[in-house]
Amino acid sequence: MRDAPQSWFDTCAQILTDPQNQRVWSIIVSLFGDLAQCPGDRLSGSALSRIIMPMGIKPEAIRVALHRLRKDGWIDSARSGRASAHFLTEFGRARSAEVSPRIYTRTPDTPTDWHLLIAEDGSGQSALDEMLLAADYFSLARNVALGAGPAPEVGDELMSFDVHARAVPDWVRARACPGDLAASCRGLVDALERAAALLPSEAEITPLQTATLRMMIVHRWRRVALRQPDLPAQFFPPDWPGPRCRAAVFRLLDRLPRPALDQLDAD
Amino acid sequence: MRDAPQSWFDTCAQILTDPQNQRVWSIIVSLFGDLAQCPGDRLSGSALSRIIMPMGIKPEAIRVALHRLRKDGWIDSARSGRASAHFLTEFGRARSAEVSPRIYTRTPDTPTDWHLLIAEDGSGQSALDEMLLAADYFSLARNVALGAGPAPEVGDELMSFDVHARAVPDWVRARACPGDLAASCRGLVDALERAAALLPSEAEITPLQTATLRMMIVHRWRRVALRQPDLPAQFFPPDWPGPRCRAAVFRLLDRLPRPALDQLDAD
Repeated sequence: MRDAPQSWFDTCAQILTDPQNQRVWSIIVSLFGDLAQCPGDRLSGSALSRIIMPMGIKPEAIRVALHRLRKDGWIDSARSGRASAHFLTEFGRARSAEVSPRIYTRTPDTPTDWHLLIAEDGSGQSALDEMLLAADYFSLARNVALGAGPAPEVGDELMSFDVHARAVPDWVRARACPGDLAASCRGLVDALERAAALLPSEAEITPLQTATLRMMIVHRWRRVALRQPDLPAQFFPPDWPGPRCRAAVFRLLDRLPRPALDQLDAD
Repeated sequence: MRDAPQSWFDTCAQILTDPQNQRVWSIIVSLFGDLAQCPGDRLSGSALSRIIMPMGIKPEAIRVALHRLRKDGWIDSARSGRASAHFLTEFGRARSAEVSPRIYTRTPDTPTDWHLLIAEDGSGQSALDEMLLAADYFSLARNVALGAGPAPEVGDELMSFDVHARAVPDWVRARACPGDLAASCRGLVDALERAAALLPSEAEITPLQTATLRMMIVHRWRRVALRQPDLPAQFFPPDWPGPRCRAAVFRLLDRLPRPALDQLDAD
């Protein structure tokens, strides 16, 4: 438990804390994705700690998470004297770049062409499951996946159709946008609006505070944006708060311009 | 068992007998569909017997089948003096007219527009099953049906797409054209070619013989034509004998022009 909030910053950090996911390695991935995704970008160990700790995360948890990320090949670290610097590996940068367009797009460009892949009942399932892992598909049913663009070459096992959606029943909308995702999204809209109301002028916010708040916003939005399939509007329930949430995210990020990395150590 | 064949006609009748289906009521349906589908068309009891009996079917079996068809509302009968006349009911004519286009089309006009209906895993199945009963759908998977034309209005339960097929895998071809259907079709091609070789000139064939042979050809072809879904060529295996069979059917029917109903009693 944290102490009672003492400043606008503590209150914002408390408001923006994801009630669902405090996995530190995942927060660090959000942070690098937001601030240090380019080759050569490095975050010093002390900057990293100072950005993350206001979320109520202990230094030990950060060390454990960095260890895991290094082990998984996401992050590498270098020492210079007593200081350490952390950076995304090539693998980590590639993963990060893969999802960035979906996270950082202000106006998602919904494809107009779609295709369906259908697996044979029973034995054909594994071929479809492989496609679902390798690319961005929306699983309409166990044996049916919807993907953007024209149908790709799919080997001998899957039936493929180029499709245009006609009627979208409620069970499909519930699959595209399950109740807990809608709840997360609504919770985030609320948090963003409350945080926005507390935010002082840009001049009063330190680079480290900016980095912390951006990280928290992006981390929470990332979990909504990446779970929400890129489907035409008709696949979503009419009360789906996704677009409102995206707008609120970018309104708040615009008030917190990305600090330069060297500002974070000078602070 | 029948006696050894004595004439071209007996041999042809033997060749054209369906090895699979001698259900008399179904043969009678084929006969009415071919010769007496119009309002007012009637077949006398004696003509009916004389057309059907060369298939090796006993008068008693014909009486039982007529009884069943009357009970099911397909056929009605009228007496005038000692003679009886049989005719399709309005229901029977409607059923007959429904399937006639698929049976009698020389060059099937494969639709270019198609749609898919997809049911929710589990609970949505019954909505799809109802559609499959009511209209002409090809079941691609338990929960996926392919139909001709643009997607219809389908209520709230089914997801519908307008589609163009891209890749058709072998398991779909095997569904469109199962092994036993291909075997029936190949058997019929063979029978038609052997019968065609035996057929004398038109002048040497009596109207009753014509009626019998037409009935046998149509009956057997009907079972292939109606089981074969109306799908684009790419859904069929390259060695699918369907088109060759259809051509052979019409070559033989053209040599056996439909007799007028009054010729069948005058015989």
